[in-house]
Amino acid sequence: MLTRFAVAPSGFKESLSAQAAAEAIAAGVRRVVPDAEVDLIPLVDGGEGTAAALAAATGGRLVALPATGPVGERVGTHFALIDRDTAVVEMAAVAGLSLVPRTLRDPGATTTYGVGELIRAALDTGVRRILVGCGDSGTSDGGAGALQALGARLLTERGYELPRGGRELHRLDRIDTTGLDPRLKDVELQVACNPFNVLCGERGVARVFGPQKGATPEQVEELSAGLDRWAYVLERDLAVSGLREGPGTGASGGLGAGLAALGARLLPRFDVLLDHLDLDARLARADLVVTAEGALDHQTPRGKVPAEVARRAKQYGRPVLALAGTIGEGAHQVHATGVDAYSSILPAPVTLPEALGRGAEFLTDATERALRMVLLGTQLTELSPSGA
Amino acid sequence: MLTRFAVAPSGFKESLSAQAAAEAIAAGVRRVVPDAEVDLIPLVDGGEGTAAALAAATGGRLVALPATGPVGERVGTHFALIDRDTAVVEMAAVAGLSLVPRTLRDPGATTTYGVGELIRAALDTGVRRILVGCGDSGTSDGGAGALQALGARLLTERGYELPRGGRELHRLDRIDTTGLDPRLKDVELQVACNPFNVLCGERGVARVFGPQKGATPEQVEELSAGLDRWAYVLERDLAVSGLREGPGTGASGGLGAGLAALGARLLPRFDVLLDHLDLDARLARADLVVTAEGALDHQTPRGKVPAEVARRAKQYGRPVLALAGTIGEGAHQVHATGVDAYSSILPAPVTLPEALGRGAEFLTDATERALRMVLLGTQLTELSPSGA
Repeated sequence: MLTRFAVAPSGFKESLSAQAAAEAIAAGVRRVVPDAEVDLIPLVDGGEGTAAALAAATGGRLVALPATGPVGERVGTHFALIDRDTAVVEMAAVAGLSLVPRTLRDPGATTTYGVGELIRAALDTGVRRILVGCGDSGTSDGGAGALQALGARLLTERGYELPRGGRELHRLDRIDTTGLDPRLKDVELQVACNPFNVLCGERGVARVFGPQKGATPEQVEELSAGLDRWAYVLERDLAVSGLREGPGTGASGGLGAGLAALGARLLPRFDVLLDHLDLDARLARADLVVTAEGALDHQTPRGKVPAEVARRAKQYGRPVLALAGTIGEGAHQVHATGVDAYSSILPAPVTLPEALGRGAEFLTDATERALRMVLLGTQLTELSPSGA
Repeated sequence: MLTRFAVAPSGFKESLSAQAAAEAIAAGVRRVVPDAEVDLIPLVDGGEGTAAALAAATGGRLVALPATGPVGERVGTHFALIDRDTAVVEMAAVAGLSLVPRTLRDPGATTTYGVGELIRAALDTGVRRILVGCGDSGTSDGGAGALQALGARLLTERGYELPRGGRELHRLDRIDTTGLDPRLKDVELQVACNPFNVLCGERGVARVFGPQKGATPEQVEELSAGLDRWAYVLERDLAVSGLREGPGTGASGGLGAGLAALGARLLPRFDVLLDHLDLDARLARADLVVTAEGALDHQTPRGKVPAEVARRAKQYGRPVLALAGTIGEGAHQVHATGVDAYSSILPAPVTLPEALGRGAEFLTDATERALRMVLLGTQLTELSPSGA
């Protein structure tokens, strides 16, 4: 009756990879149901680990290479080749927040230049499709750096090339696309992004994510103004539209908008990523689906892993249990996405650093506790006097 | 099927009374099962609040009076009259730790003198039985102060009366009982205590509880030596035995031993307290029993509320869910007492002060989360593909 488990967590930021989270949950499941069939489905969301996880799940491979990191230094990075004709470029692997040293957290200065270099390297392999995974970015340059690496010239009024970084975008006068890599026309460019992230306006990316990338309130206004200018010039000079508030344009500090201007399709990340994992069929087979993420809150229904897993599981009528390090404001809203029950993994008053450091242990223990509650429920029908 | 709830929590020390905890749990139950029949059974354990709770639950009354507090000042206190012929003397109401100012936490100096005064006042009412509730004490005098208040003279070698406080007990030479209140012979004296607390030896009360009452390691040794002497002289001069390591002799800083020397019966606290609440019958009627305490850990099976509730509920085959602020080392052992499932109430990394301050909110939310897990379980039979 409770034998087949689909364990489909996100990673826990700064604590557990999705794979480690899945293994921790599985350990808890086996404590309660020793003969459980546990299907581990560590989920990717486009951010850190996406390229490696997709390569592993599909029998693809990683290509290692050096490229320009977010603060301008050379870093070792990689992209994935999967399904014969598809390259997966994970922006976080070359421009992610974890590649920005804490002492250099200046979102006005970081660049997506390396993302453009990875796309060029992917083009060199002759693939027909390039999938760019967004998430966990350390940049706010609207993808300007990526366009420069791909051959676009971003010019000031006096004809000088614009320096790198979102801070300079307000000085952009025009874009010269004559040097753009011509192979971009022959490749299908897809961007896996959270459609709730938009480039400009009240919910624009600089306002929503700038502070956690290290921006001061003044910088947030400066970056917002720069991205406004960026959208205006891109739309005018590349003859495109919808870059300001289109779904996903704000992905990874506006990289979505920059790539969309080159003709990329911005797609809901789970639609393009999870089919590679055969997720739906695996959820449909489960007696119980267990998902998890670092936090459950009002953001969860806006495109986070537990909500996506629950939505898909509910298509097959599967029950869904969610575990989280933090139950935040508005967590109740996840019930509407299909999560039947959720719990925090914390056993006692602890500091955030301790919670992050003991994530695997806490997650295993909390899985056990949650399953014992579920099992208690399965026995209620027999036990209940009012049911008799 | 899931309609009748018995909500039988302990209080959460420094956060919630048992009544407040029961109400917080009930609020969480009603969020998930709006038409639930919730039987609130706030449990007493002999410590703080016991007299008032028993008076409320039995239609008895409280008698207010002044008496000597643990550091020697006069305090306003009370005892309860219940069931016509029984008085309930709660030691914490006159010698509890919360009556000892933090700046005066010196367990070598505090006294149970007020407990003796309360017993005298109870004798004045003409009751036939006096039930002394132990727990939450701020004293380590072995009940010496109580005996002095009841008329015993504790004498040094040179015939001087011993000053108050556990620190002086090592100087005790002999006990003169000629002045003992003669009415003690005609009353049934019961002590509700945790039988796992003993006066002397490795697990003696000074060693186990001294530190949390403010004793330094040196004081612990001093108090232990004093209680050893106390037991020796009591056994010799009052012709009793078993005071050193008998069950409950260590209750409330050794008050158990002192009263036992006067002929009191030391009884497992739940046996004498919970029958007044008609607990067993109320648990037997429930579809689900919810209990709670501040912490679940290896101590829980050693006479704590959740273990007692679970043991009794299991006599009637009732399922038991336990909630706690802290899941500590060895919490697993509670399954053996009959707790089917347990959970922490914390939603996120928080400090202990925040956890204490937001106890009611956390408990209500956690009850809701736990019940949704249980409900998920009740639905599994129908949903499961492997059950089909």
